[in-house]
Amino acid sequence: MAKSDNKPDINIDPKLDLVLERVVDVPPSKVWKAWTVPEHLMPWFCPKPWQTTECEIDLRPGGKFRTLMRGPAGESFDGTGCYLEVVPERRLTWTSALLPGYRPSAEGLRAMPFTATIILAPEGKGTRYTAIAQHMDEDGCKKHAAMGFTEGWGKALEQLVDYAKAL
Amino acid sequence: MAKSDNKPDINIDPKLDLVLERVVDVPPSKVWKAWTVPEHLMPWFCPKPWQTTECEIDLRPGGKFRTLMRGPAGESFDGTGCYLEVVPERRLTWTSALLPGYRPSAEGLRAMPFTATIILAPEGKGTRYTAIAQHMDEDGCKKHAAMGFTEGWGKALEQLVDYAKAL
Repeated sequence: MAKSDNKPDINIDPKLDLVLERVVDVPPSKVWKAWTVPEHLMPWFCPKPWQTTECEIDLRPGGKFRTLMRGPAGESFDGTGCYLEVVPERRLTWTSALLPGYRPSAEGLRAMPFTATIILAPEGKGTRYTAIAQHMDEDGCKKHAAMGFTEGWGKALEQLVDYAKAL
Repeated sequence: MAKSDNKPDINIDPKLDLVLERVVDVPPSKVWKAWTVPEHLMPWFCPKPWQTTECEIDLRPGGKFRTLMRGPAGESFDGTGCYLEVVPERRLTWTSALLPGYRPSAEGLRAMPFTATIILAPEGKGTRYTAIAQHMDEDGCKKHAAMGFTEGWGKALEQLVDYAKAL
């Protein structure tokens, strides 16, 4: 029942959602690999000097997406979410509001729950890359923006592209 | 990517989850119809004297499931959730933690968020019916139990069976 097309069918609400759209010069197949294989996700996923030191991916709706990120001063952020949509090389959706197996996540809800969707579309020899973060309220959206969503996800995408070119 | 089989693959945690299992004498096709078509859901969905006066169903992962329930003293409960798994005549999963389109639900999260799964398996001429409600913490589970999950969902199921026999 997953979507087989790639239409921008998400109702974007500018007060609740953050969007990053870029055209990058690696094909969707390599971007997909970088997002869905732990060994290929960890090298680029955090804007440096943060590092992703652990990653678990069970790539199916209801499956686990976990990353452990570590900062230069010893900070760490261990986040576990649940995949919702998996359309190879086209669309990946997960949420921090649910744990794997779809159970509501107490930890995700205490923080700033969001649902993220990565949409990939071929463009020339590259990819039109759209990342969308949907929040439950304006406060969550503002908090995510203040945490540096655009800069952070943008910088991570640059790291992804550098890494994925060698795939 | 939805499950095509019907294995009880949910990790039930007795401290977090509520389960109702019954064998009923209507086939899975009729139980499915009663759960997935608004005009066939409204007659049985609330234990009487409560009534379901409105129902919206967009039967696909990410689609809307909304019911408006009204009590005898004028109380009302308007709940909107999001379908996660739709396997015709076998399995239906939705959550109150997300709105349609997978956005985290502020209203769902303020209340007692839960994910519900209805599993249907043919048994003789009837159906083995399993309803599971998964909660994020023990408090949510206890609250749902105290609200009368077993009695309420059990009584609604009896109403479903009476109604579905005539389908």
